[in-house]
Amino acid sequence: MRQHNLFIPTLREAPAEAEATSHHYLLRAGFIRQIAAGIYGYLPLGLRVLQKISAVVREEMERIGAQELLLPAMQPADLWQQSGRYDVYGQELIRLQDRNGREFALGPTHEEVITTLVRNEISSYRRLPLTLYQIQTKFRDERRPRFGLLRGREFLMKDAYSFDVDWQGLDRTYRSMYDAYNRIFERCGLRFRAVEADAGSIGGEGETHEFMVLADIGEDTVVTCAGCQYAANLEKAEAGLSESSGEAAAERSAAYEKFHTPNVSTIEQLAAFTGLPERHFAKTLIFAADGRTIAVLVRGDHEVNELKLQQALGAEKLELADAAATQAATGAPVGFAGPVGLAVPLYVDREAAAMEAVITGANEQDYHLRHVVPGRDFELERVGDYRNVLEGDNCPRCSGKLLFYRGIEVGHVFKLGTKYSEKLGACFIDETGKERPMIMGCYGIGISRLLSAVVEQHHDGQGIVWPASLAPFQVHLIVVSVKDERQMQLSERLYRQLREAGAQVMLDDRDERPGVKFKDADLIGIPVRITIGKLAGEGMVEYKVRDSLEQLTLSAEEAVARVYEFYKGEDS
Amino acid sequence: MRQHNLFIPTLREAPAEAEATSHHYLLRAGFIRQIAAGIYGYLPLGLRVLQKISAVVREEMERIGAQELLLPAMQPADLWQQSGRYDVYGQELIRLQDRNGREFALGPTHEEVITTLVRNEISSYRRLPLTLYQIQTKFRDERRPRFGLLRGREFLMKDAYSFDVDWQGLDRTYRSMYDAYNRIFERCGLRFRAVEADAGSIGGEGETHEFMVLADIGEDTVVTCAGCQYAANLEKAEAGLSESSGEAAAERSAAYEKFHTPNVSTIEQLAAFTGLPERHFAKTLIFAADGRTIAVLVRGDHEVNELKLQQALGAEKLELADAAATQAATGAPVGFAGPVGLAVPLYVDREAAAMEAVITGANEQDYHLRHVVPGRDFELERVGDYRNVLEGDNCPRCSGKLLFYRGIEVGHVFKLGTKYSEKLGACFIDETGKERPMIMGCYGIGISRLLSAVVEQHHDGQGIVWPASLAPFQVHLIVVSVKDERQMQLSERLYRQLREAGAQVMLDDRDERPGVKFKDADLIGIPVRITIGKLAGEGMVEYKVRDSLEQLTLSAEEAVARVYEFYKGEDS
Repeated sequence: MRQHNLFIPTLREAPAEAEATSHHYLLRAGFIRQIAAGIYGYLPLGLRVLQKISAVVREEMERIGAQELLLPAMQPADLWQQSGRYDVYGQELIRLQDRNGREFALGPTHEEVITTLVRNEISSYRRLPLTLYQIQTKFRDERRPRFGLLRGREFLMKDAYSFDVDWQGLDRTYRSMYDAYNRIFERCGLRFRAVEADAGSIGGEGETHEFMVLADIGEDTVVTCAGCQYAANLEKAEAGLSESSGEAAAERSAAYEKFHTPNVSTIEQLAAFTGLPERHFAKTLIFAADGRTIAVLVRGDHEVNELKLQQALGAEKLELADAAATQAATGAPVGFAGPVGLAVPLYVDREAAAMEAVITGANEQDYHLRHVVPGRDFELERVGDYRNVLEGDNCPRCSGKLLFYRGIEVGHVFKLGTKYSEKLGACFIDETGKERPMIMGCYGIGISRLLSAVVEQHHDGQGIVWPASLAPFQVHLIVVSVKDERQMQLSERLYRQLREAGAQVMLDDRDERPGVKFKDADLIGIPVRITIGKLAGEGMVEYKVRDSLEQLTLSAEEAVARVYEFYKGEDS
Repeated sequence: MRQHNLFIPTLREAPAEAEATSHHYLLRAGFIRQIAAGIYGYLPLGLRVLQKISAVVREEMERIGAQELLLPAMQPADLWQQSGRYDVYGQELIRLQDRNGREFALGPTHEEVITTLVRNEISSYRRLPLTLYQIQTKFRDERRPRFGLLRGREFLMKDAYSFDVDWQGLDRTYRSMYDAYNRIFERCGLRFRAVEADAGSIGGEGETHEFMVLADIGEDTVVTCAGCQYAANLEKAEAGLSESSGEAAAERSAAYEKFHTPNVSTIEQLAAFTGLPERHFAKTLIFAADGRTIAVLVRGDHEVNELKLQQALGAEKLELADAAATQAATGAPVGFAGPVGLAVPLYVDREAAAMEAVITGANEQDYHLRHVVPGRDFELERVGDYRNVLEGDNCPRCSGKLLFYRGIEVGHVFKLGTKYSEKLGACFIDETGKERPMIMGCYGIGISRLLSAVVEQHHDGQGIVWPASLAPFQVHLIVVSVKDERQMQLSERLYRQLREAGAQVMLDDRDERPGVKFKDADLIGIPVRITIGKLAGEGMVEYKVRDSLEQLTLSAEEAVARVYEFYKGEDS
């Protein structure tokens, strides 16, 4: 297309609100514009990339037999009440009433709608398995929309839902979806990892993986092993047991004793006060789990992983207990809780349980205990993995060490099991005539988030560097001077020739200075640039690949041949 | 694709809620399902047709240089307050608040968002003209959602917006859009008319046309001339003056006189009471226009056209006056208003003004006046066209008569002028350095409504008959018995062969009785059907075009050749 007509409002300055590189460049290069906090318009270039991402996703979904449909954004609230999510979803769910006062939600996801749809239409095992998907606008009222498309309030998702007769069937469907996701993100030119994850608010009984694009701006921590394929989200990651820690083994025989620690109520203060490292202590935290008070003990240098704890408790809601509840449970103010003689159930992280002897709070203001021996001085009834792993911890699978990266979640696959089919009554009759709930999975890809994630990995100091598969155009023809007739003639010929061969070409026919054109071209990031300048009369052009410093002077024919070579294997 | 895997839940019975034929068949053939009143899910077949419609629209938009973008559904309410539409749009606008209490509207249209966007990015005449469009989900909380996709609350629209430097530019853009719309609806295989229309709530200063698909279920009345190209929506249609009517010319000399008409308060009662036809009377209606009381006089057999009246008055809001206001204006109860001695401004329809003498209400209970002469007995200061035309009225352009049809509005083109650019400050600097508001147009197509409109025109007693351009699949292969190996072999060969040639093929490989398969095939309406049955061993098949009674027994090769011939010229 001809750039002088195109709506590509490039900006010389970075808008102040752009914290992330991708946000910065997508705004400056004229791909997106903010309409309200977390709500964006996709300008022509941005939409072209979204359509290319969508085309890749559709091809891979079709390849595994998933069928596309399109469901509404407005969802009757009663469906969400039936699934039990209406009340627990919280403020992220956008709610509204129609003119008759009937309540609706703007869908952040479609489990309720699709499960009801399939329930109404399918009753026999002979129609299963079935995988349905859509590419559709989702709404989530994020508390803190940020980083442009990375955390928005209205965004494009591909969401798929599978219905199988049994768990073996779900395993197969899950695996084929997992493989399709790997192909999709590879085709998008991304460096990513599939990591074990937590099911979060979607819920579910089984396995779940997140697909994480590795990027410093990512809000998730990806834990990987340096020695094997192990990879997990920090919220889910496990570690192998570490070497013993705590007080020296020699202290194990002594009975515990109280010592005075005036105004020492944090681990940092205790380390400073005693001169011992944090891993010698154990800290006791008091939580309210669905209103019930419980305590959890982790090593002094560890942090409680609330998701792990919540799952161990089977609790809907978990939060730190308030001062009054802490006082009631421990008999002391916040900061002096300890495992000895506690009035509430105690959950002990397995690393804390493995300590030989340990220094803990005394459940008494300004006092701690030393020589406390796990199993002797407090019960080890509820030992489990309740902590976040640390970088450098042992891998749970091999002898390697764990490494941390930042990641952007661009995909998520879940085994839901019967969570929704049971609540919404999606059953089928099996071969023996018995009614059984369908076994479900759900699978999401953030289409608009991918637009940003790709830019996070594909840019340099001048602008975006699109991978060949997703570039808004394949070739950028730049006429140095539109007033030079020979340049215009050659440009028009190349433009026609490339388009007739099926290439997607943008012709910069603007009456602008060459410097402006080259700057915009670098910002926009089309992979191949052909510049038609002074040598046009001799049929010569400059050929440059965006991701390279080299610029070649070639005959127009050779430049065209190089374009074909560059895009060999890509659809046009 | 293989039908045994496809999610095509056909129904034997028509669902009770389906009043319109298109709604009935789209439900029965498994193209759509209702999620809530006026809110639908598009199942795989329905979505395939929507995608084909969208592809036609995109091609024709691209051909006229319109650029696609994608804007959000959630629109900040303050934009609507700036344009002045937030308060006047009424209950059809779906409103919501985000978690911070900020107000949003779910876009029924995007003038505010796009005008603001273009205002922020374009300041020079050198970047104009510009036409932007999107295919996007719209929301309108209809008071009475009905007829399936014909009047829904969440629906797909193509909406385009143009920005020109002057009215001549808008005229050109409007014309090219008008022509593109004609091509789009022709390519969709529709019988339609472009009709002059009223701008409605979008507002605007200039010309506007609606594209009406002719169908009995249509909620609009299309007025066309039997003799020329004149066509208009009833709300906008004009008529040539009719022959004189009213009392005989002989009555003109007499002074008017009051006569007793006990309990006669409607035109029907007056006609029965006097034995005269309704066209001999004139009726006086009292309205409240933005709170001001006015009267309008039309011939007894005519109806007031409130839109015409409202435009003549320049009123935001027009409604029939209540009993108290009527009593105050006329001195009589409702039913006896007349033009003589009225206390409020009187608007006289030109057909009423042209009557020689007329019988009217007397502004006194149980009395009417006869021999009332327009211009003598009441003023003719405000004469205009304030009535709906009637079928059989004279054409305003030629000597033909007007005919009425029912129509479904599927497209609308407006010249908006500066209505939004002035309110939202979308200005540009012209060649002389002067700031001027952009001259805008807006252009809509109901994408999801088209799905239904096409079915209204393309069906028979057995189901849908898709036009070749929009069929969800191009060829329906039906295996009579999936247990017959020769049938399956031939089917698989044809399936592969046709798909490799680029045809879109659905293979009915379900283990169902042939009767079920043929019934479903007729219901779904794929244009070409090839049945592989008993003659498969001899390489023979049955070839049938959906829209024909003829079924041919052909060799498989000849059947394939006929498929190619049938679809010659269509994209695949």
